[in-house]
Amino acid sequence: MLTVNRLDLADAQVLIAGAAARAGEIGIPMCIAITDESGNLLAFERMDGGKVTSITVAQDKAFTAAAARKATHEYNQACVPGNLVFGIHTEVGGRLSVVGGGLPVMVDGEVVGGIGLSSGTPQQDMDCAQAGIDHFLSQRS
Amino acid sequence: MLTVNRLDLADAQVLIAGAAARAGEIGIPMCIAITDESGNLLAFERMDGGKVTSITVAQDKAFTAAAARKATHEYNQACVPGNLVFGIHTEVGGRLSVVGGGLPVMVDGEVVGGIGLSSGTPQQDMDCAQAGIDHFLSQRS
Amino acid sequence: MLTVNRLDLADAQVLIAGAAARAGEIGIPMCIAITDESGNLLAFERMDGGKVTSITVAQDKAFTAAAARKATHEYNQACVPGNLVFGIHTEVGGRLSVVGGGLPVMVDGEVVGGIGLSSGTPQQDMDCAQAGIDHFLSQRS
Amino acid sequence: MLTVNRLDLADAQVLIAGAAARAGEIGIPMCIAITDESGNLLAFERMDGGKVTSITVAQDKAFTAAAARKATHEYNQACVPGNLVFGIHTEVGGRLSVVGGGLPVMVDGEVVGGIGLSSGTPQQDMDCAQAGIDHFLSQRS
Repeated sequence: MLTVNRLDLADAQVLIAGAAARAGEIGIPMCIAITDESGNLLAFERMDGGKVTSITVAQDKAFTAAAARKATHEYNQACVPGNLVFGIHTEVGGRLSVVGGGLPVMVDGEVVGGIGLSSGTPQQDMDCAQAGIDHFLSQRS
Repeated sequence: MLTVNRLDLADAQVLIAGAAARAGEIGIPMCIAITDESGNLLAFERMDGGKVTSITVAQDKAFTAAAARKATHEYNQACVPGNLVFGIHTEVGGRLSVVGGGLPVMVDGEVVGGIGLSSGTPQQDMDCAQAGIDHFLSQRS
Repeated sequence: MLTVNRLDLADAQVLIAGAAARAGEIGIPMCIAITDESGNLLAFERMDGGKVTSITVAQDKAFTAAAARKATHEYNQACVPGNLVFGIHTEVGGRLSVVGGGLPVMVDGEVVGGIGLSSGTPQQDMDCAQAGIDHFLSQRS
Repeated sequence: MLTVNRLDLADAQVLIAGAAARAGEIGIPMCIAITDESGNLLAFERMDGGKVTSITVAQDKAFTAAAARKATHEYNQACVPGNLVFGIHTEVGGRLSVVGGGLPVMVDGEVVGGIGLSSGTPQQDMDCAQAGIDHFLSQRS
């Protein structure tokens, strides 16, 4: 038997609050998705003005980061033609995202969930995803 | 050009709060999805203990109620073998849900969004969806 | 080698005009789809107020009627549990529709296309689909 | 509550007429799709000789341009291996198109819909999409 540590809904809301605050600062309304450690959706918010395509993209980024235990921008670096990783971006029915903006949420060296942001540039999405994690970790200490 | 009225994120959070409060009262952790008038996801919460299958089912119920402007339990009544509506439950890539628990959100006689609940019995899901709408409308008056 | 007769775009527009006129008469804004004899989309219109779910449903009805050379309401009659046809409504990735409102378009005893309507009751959808065909045939004679 | 502006069917027909006229001038029969601001299909025409694959491609381009509020050729520029956007072309179930030929339709600085063309080269598709928008805007002034 395994015992698994996992974000709860309250954690997910803290992650969203941190990411949304940063999105507000930079003036980009975002779609924000939080998954548990298995990649299943815990919470989602589309800020007013977030993009319709980003509803799915944000979820796919969070799913990938949690379920593959890897930031989507790390996959992006490796997913270039000629690298044996190339092609991973079309796997899992297209849900495996290699676009920057998905980060695993780690506690005590263990992945307990994922956060995915979409609607800005990948750099903006990554910045807000990290802000969500920073806020979450600061609340725990 | 058309002008369309649509729930914003703050509205979606009020709807979720009302539904979640009722779910807490009856002791059933729910998945709760809110869409805009076109069926696109605005906000989602999986209460601790909500079912993984319900992540999709709640979203499909909210999508159906908004995008078809009809409660999913009304489709359910008509979707019986021999009725010309039968078969609608597999349409739109299976996203059209006829399981009770999806309600259109109406303001001034117009559909402005949808709410979908899943994890309980359909009656419990419908009860909590209605509680979300009641709470939302009470906040507006 | 085969020679195939097929609706052209002008024919499709006549079919839509006939169906839309009838939809206007009964006061139900419809989604109207016309396919060629192979089930591939030729033309589509969502009347102002047509349902979002009906975008796909109308296309699936027209696809089914043309590609299976059978009215969707005829499939509906046979698609009851215990009948060997039952289950056809989930085939072709769910695109095979058995909901009333899809009719093959026939010229000289041959299927040359399909018309699918959605947003009303199946009876209203069937009525408007037939009106489209009647208008098309009256223009040819 | 939000208030949203959206193309109506008459607008969609004007957009198609403008695009089809240009397609006729350059002698390339096109598939032409118009969506509303949320990416849902409003109208579609396959000119006689338009490609079957383009039925979906044109719709995906229009969907992307409206729902992501970005021209598909702009995504194309950024979607190169090593860029953090790479991989976006397989997102949203493959519906997010980065092939040139999809443009957002803007009125008063706001995206009110999308137009997608397919069957020619991307440059031809872009040219005809722009012609549709130019014709639409000239009718409004």
